[in-house]
Amino acid sequence: MQKNPHQYCIIMAGGLGTRFWPMSRHQRPKQFLDVLGTGRTLLQETVDRFEKIILKENIFIVTNKSHKALVNEQVPGLNEDQVLLEPSRRNTAPCLAYAVSKIEVKDPEALVVVAPSDHLIIKEEAFLEQIRDGFEFAAKNQAIITLGIRPGRPDTGYGYIQFIPDESKDGKVHKVKTFIEKPNLELATSFVNSGDFLWNSGIFITSIPTIQSGFSGFLPEMFAVFQDGKEVYYKEGEAAFIDLAYAQCTNISIDYGIIEKAQNVFVIPSDFGWSDLGTWGSLYENSSKDASGNALAGKKVMLYDSHNCIVNMPKDKLVVIQGLDDYIVVDSQGILLICKKENEQDIRQMVSNVKTQHGEDFV
Amino acid sequence: MQKNPHQYCIIMAGGLGTRFWPMSRHQRPKQFLDVLGTGRTLLQETVDRFEKIILKENIFIVTNKSHKALVNEQVPGLNEDQVLLEPSRRNTAPCLAYAVSKIEVKDPEALVVVAPSDHLIIKEEAFLEQIRDGFEFAAKNQAIITLGIRPGRPDTGYGYIQFIPDESKDGKVHKVKTFIEKPNLELATSFVNSGDFLWNSGIFITSIPTIQSGFSGFLPEMFAVFQDGKEVYYKEGEAAFIDLAYAQCTNISIDYGIIEKAQNVFVIPSDFGWSDLGTWGSLYENSSKDASGNALAGKKVMLYDSHNCIVNMPKDKLVVIQGLDDYIVVDSQGILLICKKENEQDIRQMVSNVKTQHGEDFV
Repeated sequence: MQKNPHQYCIIMAGGLGTRFWPMSRHQRPKQFLDVLGTGRTLLQETVDRFEKIILKENIFIVTNKSHKALVNEQVPGLNEDQVLLEPSRRNTAPCLAYAVSKIEVKDPEALVVVAPSDHLIIKEEAFLEQIRDGFEFAAKNQAIITLGIRPGRPDTGYGYIQFIPDESKDGKVHKVKTFIEKPNLELATSFVNSGDFLWNSGIFITSIPTIQSGFSGFLPEMFAVFQDGKEVYYKEGEAAFIDLAYAQCTNISIDYGIIEKAQNVFVIPSDFGWSDLGTWGSLYENSSKDASGNALAGKKVMLYDSHNCIVNMPKDKLVVIQGLDDYIVVDSQGILLICKKENEQDIRQMVSNVKTQHGEDFV
Repeated sequence: MQKNPHQYCIIMAGGLGTRFWPMSRHQRPKQFLDVLGTGRTLLQETVDRFEKIILKENIFIVTNKSHKALVNEQVPGLNEDQVLLEPSRRNTAPCLAYAVSKIEVKDPEALVVVAPSDHLIIKEEAFLEQIRDGFEFAAKNQAIITLGIRPGRPDTGYGYIQFIPDESKDGKVHKVKTFIEKPNLELATSFVNSGDFLWNSGIFITSIPTIQSGFSGFLPEMFAVFQDGKEVYYKEGEAAFIDLAYAQCTNISIDYGIIEKAQNVFVIPSDFGWSDLGTWGSLYENSSKDASGNALAGKKVMLYDSHNCIVNMPKDKLVVIQGLDDYIVVDSQGILLICKKENEQDIRQMVSNVKTQHGEDFV
């Protein structure tokens, strides 16, 4: 199928992946790692996926300035203008305000799909089909179309999208009723049972005019900041301009800043084998396991009386583990972490303590 | 006090320390390590201790051929003849048959103290006092005098010595009634309660004629083998002779081969802060602990919700451990071991499996 020159992709690759410490480190966060042992990093998998339907010159990657070399190394063949460098971390709203304004200069009527760079997608065909459906809907409607995942379990770590089932149309795209951030278990269970709640994948499709109208309506100051840059995008002054622009931005997500407030938000219920790989636990869920339920990475890992652990070791490190159930055991770049799976949400705080006690180099 | 030129010391340094894996490796077993972080290895501590009462030229160290360089490096200033090299491992009887026969050539009436090289002794003065008492008794009697430790707990990992309390003498030296190898917990408890059972420290004092008569009586073939060497000890042919001699020796301990069978065995009940440091658990017992009962080695070890663990890490390795109770966690020379303290007796088998699966280099 011919690729549509008006369809663009924005890949957000600015995260730190802290919950994946010590494998994910500030110098090389999760998206730049071959987390699943496929031979490709998560960013590379993401680019590979979108290249199937989007022109390579229409793929834009937003990342932190410090990771420019990693992006160039992992995704060769991009024009320098396609890698947008953030001078600081300000969450997803500034990231997209920048990317959208820059694409607007090139193609004011463009359609864009926005996606994180560090998620797992197993059923690529199903995924691409829904992106196409989203583009089709966005071409005809002033709409933000999110991809919502049919929940397989009452996960309390995800955001949920409630939709209004619309039986009158072809049933693919539904109006969103509301967004709910990380519910408790009881609520999550009722969401799963109700059938009209989906996990928020963080992936959405829209058009430049639609999302810009969202910015101008809900984040007008941020909108103005990046509109001011239209003179310098693709030119020498861009980096200096962006330094100043980011200094003026508040830290806010696109979900909280626009999508949860806008009235023209839709969702496509999806099932393409998705995980945000946000934590060791989600990596465990998505890894193959031995007969005792252990997910192992490393060639010299010997387990005794151990069950349901995720053990991630350097390829040639000899490791003998006896009597561990339901633990995360990771040795990466000279750092060892042992943590109960059920306490993985504490890793973020532990990493923060590491930084305080031992310095920036260890995080 | 002047040192007696007829008093000798035989330090047995041929062990592999397998239960201390992966810190203790075949290339550098436990006795060559600074296990306790004192700045001196266990062998060095042992030599330091005996040098207080025994002439340095009367200290003999028996070790495996492959560890010659380690002994020379750790105990400088010994004459080449003082380091006896074993071509293979045959337990303690051949080791002592060799050492005793060699000392006999030099000083047929010598008194000797025999000691392992890898034990912890905290109260050095009390220890040396009892060695002196042993020498005194051995000088006057055809006796093998063992040092027995007053048991502080019903340890099932030690051998026990039952003695016949002898109130008529000065109470220091008692006749041994029997030896009991590693009893079960019930038996060990009754031993501890009875008051006339002691732990076998493996340290004993005797005279050359006495121990040689033990060899000729109970291990006559072995005795003959090493008597044959008297022509070559201290001469060029010694190593070649020993190669052949060891090939003819069975694997047998001095305890099983002689001491448990001889009638002239005595014991001095002792209390000098002794541990055989045979296992990670015994190292744990002898280490200082944090408020949660964790014994830590390493400068960058961070623990959360963890209790009663022994964590032994390279000095600068960053380690974060959450939610572990009663475990051994060791990272040494690139090998990681995690094992429940209560299962430490399985480490020997695990190491054997490591050897089978990954080769000699890892043990």
